[in-house]
Amino acid sequence: MTTTSTVHALIDPDTPFAVVDEEKALRNAQRLRAHLDRLGVVQRPHVKTSKSVPAALMMHGDQPGPITVSTLAEAEGFAAAGFIDITYAVGIAQHKLPRVIELLRRAVTVTVLVDSIEQARAVAAASAEENLRVPALIEIDADGHRGGVLPGHPILTRIGRILHDAGCLAGVLTHAGESYFAATDDAKRAAALEERDAVVEAAQSLRAAGITVETVSMGSTPTAHFAEDLTGVTEVRAGNYIFFDLVMAGIGVCRIEDIALSVVVTVIGHRPEKGWVLTDGGWMATSRDRGTARQFVDQGYGLIADLDGTLIPGLVMTDASQEHGILTVREGQPLPDLPIGTRLRVLPNHACATAAQYARYHVIGRDRTITDTWDRIQGW
Amino acid sequence: MTTTSTVHALIDPDTPFAVVDEEKALRNAQRLRAHLDRLGVVQRPHVKTSKSVPAALMMHGDQPGPITVSTLAEAEGFAAAGFIDITYAVGIAQHKLPRVIELLRRAVTVTVLVDSIEQARAVAAASAEENLRVPALIEIDADGHRGGVLPGHPILTRIGRILHDAGCLAGVLTHAGESYFAATDDAKRAAALEERDAVVEAAQSLRAAGITVETVSMGSTPTAHFAEDLTGVTEVRAGNYIFFDLVMAGIGVCRIEDIALSVVVTVIGHRPEKGWVLTDGGWMATSRDRGTARQFVDQGYGLIADLDGTLIPGLVMTDASQEHGILTVREGQPLPDLPIGTRLRVLPNHACATAAQYARYHVIGRDRTITDTWDRIQGW
Repeated sequence: MTTTSTVHALIDPDTPFAVVDEEKALRNAQRLRAHLDRLGVVQRPHVKTSKSVPAALMMHGDQPGPITVSTLAEAEGFAAAGFIDITYAVGIAQHKLPRVIELLRRAVTVTVLVDSIEQARAVAAASAEENLRVPALIEIDADGHRGGVLPGHPILTRIGRILHDAGCLAGVLTHAGESYFAATDDAKRAAALEERDAVVEAAQSLRAAGITVETVSMGSTPTAHFAEDLTGVTEVRAGNYIFFDLVMAGIGVCRIEDIALSVVVTVIGHRPEKGWVLTDGGWMATSRDRGTARQFVDQGYGLIADLDGTLIPGLVMTDASQEHGILTVREGQPLPDLPIGTRLRVLPNHACATAAQYARYHVIGRDRTITDTWDRIQGW
Repeated sequence: MTTTSTVHALIDPDTPFAVVDEEKALRNAQRLRAHLDRLGVVQRPHVKTSKSVPAALMMHGDQPGPITVSTLAEAEGFAAAGFIDITYAVGIAQHKLPRVIELLRRAVTVTVLVDSIEQARAVAAASAEENLRVPALIEIDADGHRGGVLPGHPILTRIGRILHDAGCLAGVLTHAGESYFAATDDAKRAAALEERDAVVEAAQSLRAAGITVETVSMGSTPTAHFAEDLTGVTEVRAGNYIFFDLVMAGIGVCRIEDIALSVVVTVIGHRPEKGWVLTDGGWMATSRDRGTARQFVDQGYGLIADLDGTLIPGLVMTDASQEHGILTVREGQPLPDLPIGTRLRVLPNHACATAAQYARYHVIGRDRTITDTWDRIQGW
């Protein structure tokens, strides 16, 4: 089943380990960059999926560019690697401002996110006290997914005024989190429009109140790919697309063959009477994320491919304990012959969660050799 | 709501971070050790939950003792800390034997697990080639949960014979994984009996074939606590109990107040119209594990306590994105006043999965100061 003769590289490392297909990741990066270039917006990729400097460089065509981060550990790590324009896209907690200020003093622009009067005041106060300006974006709620201020809500100008008067206001930002559930292309196009309209409306209402707004930031992997007109938007953030995953494939943002991240596991047993193949990759190797459980086709803990990346028809990782995976075949499919010792690749439900289980990736190139090891930034 | 004046220690570290209540962990450790002492069996705690040397020492009354591990990285890390009797309780993959042999040469007994002829032959061959004995246990299937040989199956003596003849057979081992779903005390007692009977029967059938069996190993946190007679069993493995979690509380193995692991998060926003409190602890902080979703009471991503550990009535972490948690109250409960900046503790669904999100724990003592930092062993 596995044509191991052509992929010696993945036979060596101890399993389980995470693999990035360099060619697929590069194609994913180039595709979105070309699309956003056509739409005339700055790309500020979210690096929370890979948390890896080489992947972020790849997203920007091999040079540091504007990025979005989900933790200050990422901000610090990417700053150390030469990234100097960083948006920390989680509502700021006051106690985290000293780490932001430390980076600002080192000439790294770290822009924070607020959606309340309290946070705006904390940003303004810290800026005054430290005699610098902590740049801040106001989070806008485009689709009721998470935090943020509604575009037409009067609190928006109150927050805007506090930040503007302190010299801190950078602009507005939104994230169409509900687009992850947009199963049709029409729904994804509609989500992109809704996201754009929400953040542009917010910018306009601030401007109407005499408040300067420069950055108008939107982005999610589904809406970034399906946006057709981004008039009024200055930058787009998306992150998952560098790897993609079964959730993104399930809603048609990518094809399964675009998924650039997988986990290599080894067959360690069989229970033929149950139709089970056991591997040494459990939930510690894949994460507990079961994002496709809410989709039209539940892909279990992941689809199974051979070491070349070719899907094995009908084979799914259907259960997991900490260090054991259970593979079964879908109804009507024959159980393939996978002797003990066979190595397989598990395609992830959710690349962000699966990648988080690893300290590094093995990167394989076109010639199926391991070309590199990419370290991940861990923790907070 | 939070009586922060008494818990200054947890106000300092950047959130999210993992906290171990030392007193609770110690009480959990002492309770099971006393119970197993009464039953006259050796305790071989599974360290896969904490992956932390001080926690394993605590399980053994402050000295290294026999342990169970889920990865060779744990075996190597604990060996370096003075643990010399280690069972690696995941079916052995042949390519991992060199790491086992390296430890054996350093006088660390690492016992491996097999449930197939192929694995037994690989262990025997490696032992002959390296001129040493790789000790091996045969995995027995007590309850259809995962891998293992059925106690009465003829393959058991075939595997036993191969290992015995190579001087490698250490004994038999089982794990009643289904006991995690045993909701009543009667069901847990029955699971403990079933687990004991399966592994003892397997040992007897090997002995009847003239094969020496020394170790008769069983164990899971539910069955270890509810076993009443372990005649024929030589050792018990359990691990989760050092921390416990909401899954264990949900099936009555512990009380919620016994849970020794929690995650400290900060309130970063509110959506009063939705009844949401937003925190900086998302699934990266808690893991995606939703073990209680299959239980009688679904505890979401975790119950919420104040910094003193006192539960806030009805407050549950009901949704998560990577770095955002959403807290809501159960129907009929008032939404508590939790200003931005408030720190809270999230009790985990599954301690093994939540702990895996962290490189270390902050340990708090009786006087509510941080008494220690415990590092975790990461990776494979």
